[in-house]
Amino acid sequence: MTMTAPLIQRLAVVGVGLIGGSFALGLKAAGAVGEVVGIGRSRANLDTALARGIIDRATDDPAAGVAEADLVFLSVPVLSMGPVAARLLPAMRPGAVLTDGGSVKQSVIDAIEPLLPPGVEFVPGHPIAGTERSGAAAALRTGYRNRRCILTPTGRTGAEALALVRRAWQVLGSEVVEMSADKHDRILAAISHLPHMVAYALVNAVGSYDRYEECLLDYSAGGFRDFTRIASSDPTMWRDIALANREALLEMLDRYRNFLDVLRDDVATGAGEQLYEFFHASKQMRDAIDEPTREDG
Amino acid sequence: MTMTAPLIQRLAVVGVGLIGGSFALGLKAAGAVGEVVGIGRSRANLDTALARGIIDRATDDPAAGVAEADLVFLSVPVLSMGPVAARLLPAMRPGAVLTDGGSVKQSVIDAIEPLLPPGVEFVPGHPIAGTERSGAAAALRTGYRNRRCILTPTGRTGAEALALVRRAWQVLGSEVVEMSADKHDRILAAISHLPHMVAYALVNAVGSYDRYEECLLDYSAGGFRDFTRIASSDPTMWRDIALANREALLEMLDRYRNFLDVLRDDVATGAGEQLYEFFHASKQMRDAIDEPTREDG
Repeated sequence: MTMTAPLIQRLAVVGVGLIGGSFALGLKAAGAVGEVVGIGRSRANLDTALARGIIDRATDDPAAGVAEADLVFLSVPVLSMGPVAARLLPAMRPGAVLTDGGSVKQSVIDAIEPLLPPGVEFVPGHPIAGTERSGAAAALRTGYRNRRCILTPTGRTGAEALALVRRAWQVLGSEVVEMSADKHDRILAAISHLPHMVAYALVNAVGSYDRYEECLLDYSAGGFRDFTRIASSDPTMWRDIALANREALLEMLDRYRNFLDVLRDDVATGAGEQLYEFFHASKQMRDAIDEPTREDG
Repeated sequence: MTMTAPLIQRLAVVGVGLIGGSFALGLKAAGAVGEVVGIGRSRANLDTALARGIIDRATDDPAAGVAEADLVFLSVPVLSMGPVAARLLPAMRPGAVLTDGGSVKQSVIDAIEPLLPPGVEFVPGHPIAGTERSGAAAALRTGYRNRRCILTPTGRTGAEALALVRRAWQVLGSEVVEMSADKHDRILAAISHLPHMVAYALVNAVGSYDRYEECLLDYSAGGFRDFTRIASSDPTMWRDIALANREALLEMLDRYRNFLDVLRDDVATGAGEQLYEFFHASKQMRDAIDEPTREDG
């Protein structure tokens, strides 16, 4: 029997939640990682991660945790990426690679690249695979299977480091796509950040309606529950995303509101044909993406 | 063995889709109905309903279909309720009961009550159980189990007719709630009609974004798919709902837009604390309704 070295001898995961925990679990299950060090502030969450076998060691000290790591995976709220990177980058050994799973890319690049010490590479990345759940308890071994991971290398990103991170996501079963950080941020503003804003606003608007002496949400059926599930997402994570991707999100919020205003006016004027066309166009677009192979496969 | 008469000797279902088909299937499975006559315009859909055992006989003639029925269940788009009722009511026998499953109640009552012949009762109803699917193929025997059905009797609704319809929904496993048509229409505007408008507008806004030479919807992951599933709903049904419940829907659309505007301004000004509070309040309300017993039981 030939023993081959794992892809990554030592992995450090900073923020062992759904995203970081699933990254470690999947790589472990594939035999692609030697030891995993978990770094975080919540002892309870780290204990959960240890108990689930997501990590082998735990520490609350970023510098100590990353000192011997070949790959460091940063999965903290996006506005914490810079401050946390500032603490751990000086402790990373030359030749080590930092990557991340943040939902916004340009602001994370702007925060991290100026801090990179010589010999340490940064590969900005984002797996499109979140759910409304969070914490190590929510991590899934197969969380990235048949998903897409977007990498947004910059002019400073080395080819070897990029290849390593790309390989890690492929081992996890993801399709890796490369694009600019700006394009990533606009696409995600549209398909993820805007829908979260819309869902948060909807639940607030409906949940606080007080014409009757009962909460209208108690009447909600399956459709409303599916529709608003993402409004259960972590508020800190989403505050950070909204602030870090402000420009692209505002573009999409304003675009969306224009469509909503057209629809509102068609309702107000009783424009049946226009309403039908509006709903029909939306149904056609929505039906076209409902192919189970990508997400359920 | 004692043979007891079924609750309903002959049931006529006008519009054998998801709503009407599930009504017939569930009552048949419970032995609560003798014969079911299906009435509709699409021969293909009626054939599906016959093949699935949802109905025993099929016709495209409302008058012939309802002539011997004890209970007639009307499940056509809400703006068709009046015109269809006008054709079938003169053919209903005295003592028979008409009920419906329309998503808007006041406009249906206004359209039907003036047409009622002597001896025929109307019980306005609405099961809160739809999905984005439609047609007889989507009907489910257990579609109403552990759901709520709202009945909105008027001053003209007879007690015996109301009791019969209430019993039918209870046999189907639904919790029956009575309220005014106005309250129903406002609650449904909030928890169902508004979310559909929001989802239709979102899919249109995102799906037609053309900065890149690809459809952004192709990048959507599970969250977006859940969120926009209701945008696959039938456009005719939703055009009718938007027109028939215009006033209540406009109230909720404007209320929602005020919340969205607050959120938009907080994003624009980078008001992190306000964003956190907005998301946190929404998450708390959403988490409070996520009890699996009602919908999944």
